Amino acid sequence: MEGNLLVIALGGNAIKQAEQQGTTEEQFRNVDLTTRQIARIAREGYRLVVTHGNGPQAGALLIQQEEGEPEVPAQSLAACGAMTQGQIGWMIQNRLAYWLRQEGIHTPVCTVVTQVVVSAEDPDFQDPSKPVGPFYTREEARRLQQEKRYVVKEVKPSAPRGWRRVVPSPEPQDIVEKDSINALLGSGAIVIASGGGGIPVQRNGDGSYSGVEAVIDKDRAGFVLAQAVSAQAFLILTDVEKVYLRYGRPDAAPLDRLSVAQAREYLAQGHFLAGSMGPKIEAALRFAWWSRHEAVITSLDKALEAILGRTGTRICP
Amino acid sequence: MEGNLLVIALGGNAIKQAEQQGTTEEQFRNVDLTTRQIARIAREGYRLVVTHGNGPQAGALLIQQEEGEPEVPAQSLAACGAMTQGQIGWMIQNRLAYWLRQEGIHTPVCTVVTQVVVSAEDPDFQDPSKPVGPFYTREEARRLQQEKRYVVKEVKPSAPRGWRRVVPSPEPQDIVEKDSINALLGSGAIVIASGGGGIPVQRNGDGSYSGVEAVIDKDRAGFVLAQAVSAQAFLILTDVEKVYLRYGRPDAAPLDRLSVAQAREYLAQGHFLAGSMGPKIEAALRFAWWSRHEAVITSLDKALEAILGRTGTRICP
Repeated sequence: MEGNLLVIALGGNAIKQAEQQGTTEEQFRNVDLTTRQIARIAREGYRLVVTHGNGPQAGALLIQQEEGEPEVPAQSLAACGAMTQGQIGWMIQNRLAYWLRQEGIHTPVCTVVTQVVVSAEDPDFQDPSKPVGPFYTREEARRLQQEKRYVVKEVKPSAPRGWRRVVPSPEPQDIVEKDSINALLGSGAIVIASGGGGIPVQRNGDGSYSGVEAVIDKDRAGFVLAQAVSAQAFLILTDVEKVYLRYGRPDAAPLDRLSVAQAREYLAQGHFLAGSMGPKIEAALRFAWWSRHEAVITSLDKALEAILGRTGTRICP
Repeated sequence: MEGNLLVIALGGNAIKQAEQQGTTEEQFRNVDLTTRQIARIAREGYRLVVTHGNGPQAGALLIQQEEGEPEVPAQSLAACGAMTQGQIGWMIQNRLAYWLRQEGIHTPVCTVVTQVVVSAEDPDFQDPSKPVGPFYTREEARRLQQEKRYVVKEVKPSAPRGWRRVVPSPEPQDIVEKDSINALLGSGAIVIASGGGGIPVQRNGDGSYSGVEAVIDKDRAGFVLAQAVSAQAFLILTDVEKVYLRYGRPDAAPLDRLSVAQAREYLAQGHFLAGSMGPKIEAALRFAWWSRHEAVITSLDKALEAILGRTGTRICP
């Protein structure tokens, strides 16, 4: 199959909407809409790598891990990440294969369980900031701090359950399974990889990798994945059609096109929220800078139009 | 890489021992021993596909799904199967890559999330027999029968928690991701696939596949996987070094070598337990009959010796 290689990073709303409970059926309905869009992009001749977030799924799984104790032991955060890769990867590969065939495309779709390397020296290990799992009361938080050595932080509004576990969100450095992902792409397959930002692992002195209790930002990991497969385009899907300056304010202004230098400047000026648009802009500009190709940020339902150059925000080399 | 293509089916004890709790750390320790054996087999020049059970992991996950309700919805049985593929696949690929490198072998290792097709007409859907998940009291079982339409059966010894959910265990027919698995093998990778017998799916009229609430026997699915990759050998690892006639009785006799016809006869005579050695013998004889190559049944710690012809029970074409 010919065509450019595109990495698509799916936001959380592509799999579970905020107002939904998150049953398997609900998630399949969302994934059905999502993969229909992706199949339309494939029809335009793109070879595809799909990556995705796992926030709501990991959140639910962490609650289940806690509620299941002491009857069965909670699995590590890294293991839970691996589990959500299986869960979400399955749903995407299942429905994407269907919609591809509806478009007359008979390429295989395959989810690769993916480990992403982080550095044990990453500064985020000293000051974890990423909230994961359920909300706790102050007493529960204190107990977990002692019993499980969780780092907990108060989140606002605080009462009554205003505490959460926070974990490091280190920078992704490399994709352990990149050779396999490239082999699959070379065979013509569409690959789903690095779900939830990847299973975070650190390299040990003996050359082995071990799982770490951390969460990698999925857009940043998406950039490292795009590097690993030498992608020619990077599409980040979220819940807004365009990136805004002064988002949410009366003088908010949508952006059609940004140079890497402009994106860096706006980022430094604090235009983009840290846990939200910030990492997307960061991942997009890194990609544009590194690849000399465009990165595009838009909403799921505008994905095809944005790829065709009709909407979205483009970060250009 | 040259050499014969071998499918290895790992038994439950390869990942979690019966007396263990099943923490991530414990499971990694078991997987470490298991993958060390597999790396030794790779050193002999075999190309490898690894499949594995998920009984204890799925059992724990189903308990967690129940305990997490009503806070978060329980995922479907098929989704839980997908999750355990991510979980166990990760552990195996992580440690197998390490041990391969210790043996000087630098092939990639990759877990493929795998769907296995079953027929909606399979007789097991009429009379489900495979117990899954936790044990219930009679009252809990009745409630779940009504609320969730579970089929429940009494298991002996019964009191006080002597009821379990039973689900169909249909015959596996095909591996949806076989093209991707073969592409990876063609690239020289070692592939982990069809974990837990695969995510059971049925084919719908529109060509799509949907998950079914069932559990596929992992050895039977291992045979279908061996067919899909045209394996030249099939190694089933369990907790005994050899298969026995009259197992557990004073006149028990170990078997070194069985023809397909003998295996069929002993199976029909009821020599092998239905939920235990039965499906292994069945999968092994199907493989020997179909491939004209040998299938070997032995214990994990004798895997290499058995492959070299020094122990184990061989089912021969």
